Amino acid sequence: MTASSWLNTEEPLRLEVLRGKVVMLHAFQMLCPACVTRATPQASAVAECFAADDFQLIGLHTVFEHHRVMDVDALRVYVAEFRVPFPIAIDQPAENGPVPVTMAKLGLQGTPSTVLVDRAGNISLSHFGVLSDMQLGAMVGQLLAM
Amino acid sequence: MTASSWLNTEEPLRLEVLRGKVVMLHAFQMLCPACVTRATPQASAVAECFAADDFQLIGLHTVFEHHRVMDVDALRVYVAEFRVPFPIAIDQPAENGPVPVTMAKLGLQGTPSTVLVDRAGNISLSHFGVLSDMQLGAMVGQLLAM
Amino acid sequence: MTASSWLNTEEPLRLEVLRGKVVMLHAFQMLCPACVTRATPQASAVAECFAADDFQLIGLHTVFEHHRVMDVDALRVYVAEFRVPFPIAIDQPAENGPVPVTMAKLGLQGTPSTVLVDRAGNISLSHFGVLSDMQLGAMVGQLLAM
Amino acid sequence: MTASSWLNTEEPLRLEVLRGKVVMLHAFQMLCPACVTRATPQASAVAECFAADDFQLIGLHTVFEHHRVMDVDALRVYVAEFRVPFPIAIDQPAENGPVPVTMAKLGLQGTPSTVLVDRAGNISLSHFGVLSDMQLGAMVGQLLAM
Repeated sequence: MTASSWLNTEEPLRLEVLRGKVVMLHAFQMLCPACVTRATPQASAVAECFAADDFQLIGLHTVFEHHRVMDVDALRVYVAEFRVPFPIAIDQPAENGPVPVTMAKLGLQGTPSTVLVDRAGNISLSHFGVLSDMQLGAMVGQLLAM
Repeated sequence: MTASSWLNTEEPLRLEVLRGKVVMLHAFQMLCPACVTRATPQASAVAECFAADDFQLIGLHTVFEHHRVMDVDALRVYVAEFRVPFPIAIDQPAENGPVPVTMAKLGLQGTPSTVLVDRAGNISLSHFGVLSDMQLGAMVGQLLAM
Repeated sequence: MTASSWLNTEEPLRLEVLRGKVVMLHAFQMLCPACVTRATPQASAVAECFAADDFQLIGLHTVFEHHRVMDVDALRVYVAEFRVPFPIAIDQPAENGPVPVTMAKLGLQGTPSTVLVDRAGNISLSHFGVLSDMQLGAMVGQLLAM
Repeated sequence: MTASSWLNTEEPLRLEVLRGKVVMLHAFQMLCPACVTRATPQASAVAECFAADDFQLIGLHTVFEHHRVMDVDALRVYVAEFRVPFPIAIDQPAENGPVPVTMAKLGLQGTPSTVLVDRAGNISLSHFGVLSDMQLGAMVGQLLAM
């Protein structure tokens, strides 16, 4: 995960340090309707549902279109107004092309996307679109039991 | 589980035979509002979410009040009209008192109640009230991973 | 409106006496899913939305199938458990056939049905199915302004 | 209504020309959560519910904070992504202070706000916050009947 900056955290989170926890990356854009109305509120609910000593949610702002109007100032307002509570990494812009670095590296197809990382640091799910609360809960639950 | 009769199954289900699967009992009454509007539709969603070779949902109609108007004929109409898809055990009436046999044996406090049984046949959860989809998914997911 | 009995009212309501008010009849069955989960809660919201000195909501229990399990004892339990707050007329059973008298007279096609009666006592709408809150609010609002 | 520019319409709408129709102004900001998740979708539903020859919905983008990140470019992206279908006036910035001209003139307290204008051009409602679909439908219905 390559971030140009972070919100909602005093210092950057590093996946290596989170080894031993289950990690969920919630890739979103602040002007993506399915993110704003469904996936980002759901991600907040995930963060509340699972114990912090066992689970970490990380937002990943992966802007691949309309970059100017979703810049860090706009995101800061969005996060404050919509009370997004979890740490957010702002994906590093690419040197060439609109797709940012982490999004490209993870091969994400769009927003919202969900990436689940098991305790050993392996990616166990990469999903484009909105999962049901039950499916997502089940997948996190399974990873926590392993 | 002591049932006086069953709906939606050709023959009674027996917990002993289900050993190796995760089992969820959904205790309900057909005129309990939180069951009808929330917990029973959620139970149907649980049955759809998890693979049948690994998971079994069983409805348990535990009538402890207004027995006459929730008898087997009424339940049959309810199940047909509301399209409840899963097998349902009708809890055995007690010889004395309103609380039926299985409900008493499991110590359920009311409806809806959720009982989760792990692959070894042990009860891992007994909950009165409605869980969130995410919590319920997480608990079933954890049991399936064990 | 021919009722065999009433619930939630000390004495029967008569449309003639309600002349001058807008009246909404909410025809339902206690085991009709679209009634229980959508139209009856909506009818309760209508009753709350409009002033009692100008508007009267009347429930009409029009049982045309499964009569035994939706008898007056069952309805009484349903109304108490689901906290249905408005006066309910129990439609008069027909001498021949399953469709009760008022339902036949009004030509209702099923449940839920909504019948709106203007201040002069004329039927201005008879609708089978669930209307949106906005449509229903608009129609009652229009009748109240006339 | 003083607009610096318009979206979703070939030419500016003028209230004088709309005399004879009921008009609803939906005052919003593109990063106001109650607007995005509730009031703006509701406004779209209002526009669909009532006939265009009798009723006109006008969005009013009244930015009174975070002006830079809700400028016209950002709004254009928001409107396209969220498929906001109705004409939108962008409120004229004030010469002094953050509150734009029309918002100040109408005395709106924040977003979302709903202003209803009757066929004669008189303001019959000015409401800050989200109304229920039923209340809003009733008020528009009443104005249409007059």
